[in-house]
Formats: sequence, structure tokens, C-alpha cells
Amino acid sequence: MELPQRVSIIEVGPRDGLQNEKQLVPAQEKIKFIKKLKASGIQEMELTSFVSPKWVPQMSDAEQIIEHCLDDSTRNLVLVPNEKGVSRLLSSACKNAAFFVGVSNTFNQKNINKSTRDSMEELAPLIKDLKRNGFFVRACLSTAFYCPYEGKVDEQEVLALSEEFAALGVDELSVADTIGLANPQEVFELFSLLKHHLPSTLLIAAHFHDTRGMALANIFSALQAGIDRFDTSAGGLGGCPFAPGATGNVATEDAVFMLNRMGISTGIQLEPLLEAVEFIAPFVSRGLQSRQFLLSKTGKGALG
Amino acid sequence: MELPQRVSIIEVGPRDGLQNEKQLVPAQEKIKFIKKLKASGIQEMELTSFVSPKWVPQMSDAEQIIEHCLDDSTRNLVLVPNEKGVSRLLSSACKNAAFFVGVSNTFNQKNINKSTRDSMEELAPLIKDLKRNGFFVRACLSTAFYCPYEGKVDEQEVLALSEEFAALGVDELSVADTIGLANPQEVFELFSLLKHHLPSTLLIAAHFHDTRGMALANIFSALQAGIDRFDTSAGGLGGCPFAPGATGNVATEDAVFMLNRMGISTGIQLEPLLEAVEFIAPFVSRGLQSRQFLLSKTGKGALG
Repeated sequence: MELPQRVSIIEVGPRDGLQNEKQLVPAQEKIKFIKKLKASGIQEMELTSFVSPKWVPQMSDAEQIIEHCLDDSTRNLVLVPNEKGVSRLLSSACKNAAFFVGVSNTFNQKNINKSTRDSMEELAPLIKDLKRNGFFVRACLSTAFYCPYEGKVDEQEVLALSEEFAALGVDELSVADTIGLANPQEVFELFSLLKHHLPSTLLIAAHFHDTRGMALANIFSALQAGIDRFDTSAGGLGGCPFAPGATGNVATEDAVFMLNRMGISTGIQLEPLLEAVEFIAPFVSRGLQSRQFLLSKTGKGALG
Repeated sequence: MELPQRVSIIEVGPRDGLQNEKQLVPAQEKIKFIKKLKASGIQEMELTSFVSPKWVPQMSDAEQIIEHCLDDSTRNLVLVPNEKGVSRLLSSACKNAAFFVGVSNTFNQKNINKSTRDSMEELAPLIKDLKRNGFFVRACLSTAFYCPYEGKVDEQEVLALSEEFAALGVDELSVADTIGLANPQEVFELFSLLKHHLPSTLLIAAHFHDTRGMALANIFSALQAGIDRFDTSAGGLGGCPFAPGATGNVATEDAVFMLNRMGISTGIQLEPLLEAVEFIAPFVSRGLQSRQFLLSKTGKGALG
């Protein structure tokens, strides 16, 4: 069994994780959280989002977060949903953009009131423009496995959309199992297909939700398909709106624990990472459920 | 990626799951629970245990459970720790025995106050005798990956002990990651080794704890090593005494969900299985944490 020897973690807690959090987290606490995450060795991170403050008040401090958290040793990504977001990005010092589109047309429609096709037409010139200006661009494909409305998503559609993004010159794809329903075999198949057909220079990250407890199995499966980049969220922050009560993003500390145990280097230290999780826990409304966080409470810890 | 097309689930909830439960569950409720589990399609089960009622009051109703729960369509296993247990088994109508031994000597010593070697010397004649009398015998190897006292367990020791059991004529081995610390790569390696060296007629089951969230990843990995038998516990019943607050055995419903989704037949229906979990939930002191159980509470269910 051949697995990558090194894996990159893209921490999405400060953006994807906190975005759905109803309780407003003060900007200075987010900044402390982000700095603690970086201190644990995290080198790539979704920092915040240039979405409308009216729709997502939690992200209304985006400029402030960027001002205090940019640094040379981390790839700091900011989500830009549209032209307005891009113009805010261009006014900031951040040079890394993340775009989102749902592979499932119905999901995209319900999520941002546009068809997938219309989204692509809006995003294409923005992406090309950012690329011309030397930006790092990440494209996030949500509902790449299942859509809560349409069911199973055709992997050829995922490939076609991925190729479209590749042609636009994006640097990275993040391919997401948004509702946490993909099984490890489907994960192996889709990522094998993408690795086979997409340019080897294109970075491919896998984004799993742990709604049905399969996230670590899916990471293990994706590793076997040659994937060496994973989106994860400290503390498992971020809910899946389709399954209240269930956990959302796979927890960074659980993924890092498993990877470290397999001798796969992540560059991340578990102890300071758990300190970051401990720090943010009081600011989120639901109790954090990651295994490493719960174990750290028992004093029995990692056992090695 | 080649995986078995069919998998056998050995349900351990009524024995391994309830055994550590402080609150006594009345025998008639256990019987209802067991019948509900069987109604979901479960065909192999650890029913109860002939341990000393003084040490484990929860299992003092073993004879009663057996009297009401034996049937021809299920392999009903009863744990027998020693000669006393075997003599109780011989007085019952049950023809399937399970023995336990820790691969780690320190663990075995702390657990039952005997060295692993002394345990084997005690069990060998009992096993041979039961085999002569047509019994089905299962040998459970605990701490087959890690010991809470000794750390990493040498896989050659696991193989040697397995070969010893094979020579005694046991029908099945259950190889356990007792403290839930094994990673998927170690799982693949140990089970590949065992499959390679042990007689192909010997059944091999994998027994995982979800303490660190790796149980489904480990099942997926063991499948790749050719393992097609898994011990699981309805509701994730059963704690790991070394990690209070963390979950214990992998939940049957979470394993069945993943296997079913991969098109691997288990013969078990999720809905009646969740009814059995729902039934036992009020009798256990800690809240059940399986993903399928939590999802069933949200009404969002399995989504397919």
C-alpha cells in the first residue's frame, strides 16, 4: 500500500467553520485563534470571506482579519463569491482567492440563486483577471459526490467542471463531499479519475464532512488515490446545514492524529493545535466533538 | 480496488457492550433487545458471558438469556473465561464458545491476573475438549495492536498466538484493537500478514474501537486486506475503560451504513437495527453517540 509521505492541510475553520456560527466571534478573538493555528504548524488557511456583511455578519470583519493575519509563511486564502468580493480582495493585501461553485445545479441554484453555468460565466473573467495579476486561485467544487436535492452526482460532471477550472488557470481544486455521504470506494474512484485526467501541476485537495463518521476512511481512501491535500477544520468547526446535530467538517486534529500515526508528515503539532481548539471552544454554540478534543479532556490524550 | 462482496457482522452489543454498563439492564429487556437485533438481520452475536456474577453482576442472567435467545438461524456465542465458565456452557444448550486472551502479557496480567502463557495453558485443554464435542470456538485476541501498558505490540507475537489457536482447532479468530489506537496502515499490514500465514479455513474477524474516530477507516483498510468479518456493537455500546468519554466499540449501524453504501452486502437492514438501538438507549448510562443514531434523531436520516 503506497501512500504519500507528506500531506498538506488546508485549515478551513476560521472561514468555513465559523461562517455558520450564529454567535458573533469578536475579531480580536478570531485573530488570536488564527495565530494559535499557525503556531501549530498550519501553513495554508481559509482566513475569512468577502461575502456580504448583510448575509453573513460573522464575516463582516474580513478586512480586519486580513490586516492582522497575513504573513509570509502561510498561504492565506480568502473566499470571494463574486465581483464585489474580488474588488474587496484587490483592495486588500491578500493574494490568494477561493471561489465556490456547486457541481449540482439545483444546489448552486438554492445556495446562491444561480445555475452552475451562470456561476461559471460570472467567475471565469474574474479568475482569469486574478491569474493575470499573479494571484493564487483555488476553486472549490461543492456537492462533488452527492447533492441533497439531486442525489448522486455524475463523476463525469465533476471532471468536466474541473477541466473547465483547469483551463481557466486555477492553481488548486478543492473537491467536496458537502453532505458527508460519499463512501470510501466512491472517493477512491472519483479522485483516481481526477488524478488521471487533470494536469499534474494542478493541486487537488479533498474536502470531507464527518456527518456519517466516514471522513477519516475517506481521507485514507483519497491518500490511496494519490491525494496529498486535505481541507480540515480545527475542532470540527462548521455544521452541515442538512444534518443538524451531526458534526460537519472533519476535525483537523483527528485528521492530523491519524496522518501522524501513519508516519505521514503534516508539519502540524497536535498539542498546540488542541490549544487552539480549546481557545475557540467557548465561542461556538455547539460543543466540539472531535475525538482528540474529547480525549484531551480525559487526560488520557493521544497515548503516543 | 477489490473488496469482499459480502461481509459478516458479529454483533457484540449484548455482551461486550453491556458488560461494562454499571446500570443493570433487566433480563427481559436484554432479551427484547437481542430479538430486535436478530430481526434486523444479524446472524452472529455475542449473547452473554459466563463470568462470575460477583465480578460482573450485569451478566448474572446468562442462563436466562441463553434459554430465551437461542435459535437456529443465528450463531449465538457465549464468552467463557475459564473452566467454571465452560462447565456452565456445557450445562446450557449453547454450542458456540468465545475465549479471550491478551496478546500483551501485561494487559492479560492486569485484566485477569494471569500471564498470557498461563492463560493459554488453561484454555488449551478446554478448547480441545469443546472442539471434540462439536462446538464452534472463537478466540478473541485483545491488545493485538497496542497495549495501554506496553505500547506497540509486535505483529509476530499476534501471528504466533494466532497460529497456536489455529493448531488448537479454533474456528474463528477475532483480532482486536482494544484501545482504538491502530491506524489503517497498521491494520492493513497485520491482517495481510495473518491472511497470508493462517489456514484459509480459519475465520478471521476484525474488532475495532472508535476511540480516535479511526474505526471505519480501519474497517475499510481491513476489507482491502481481505477481511470479511467484523465485530461491531449496536449503538456503539461498550466503553473503552482507558478513555472515558470516548466511544468504545464501532457502532453496528455506522459500519452497516458504510458497507451497504459501498454495495457490500451485510444482510442487515438499517431501519430495524436503529429501532433496536433506540430501544436500548434508555437503559445505558451514557448517551449513545453513533452517527446513524444521531442522524435518525434529526429526521434527516440516511439520505438514501
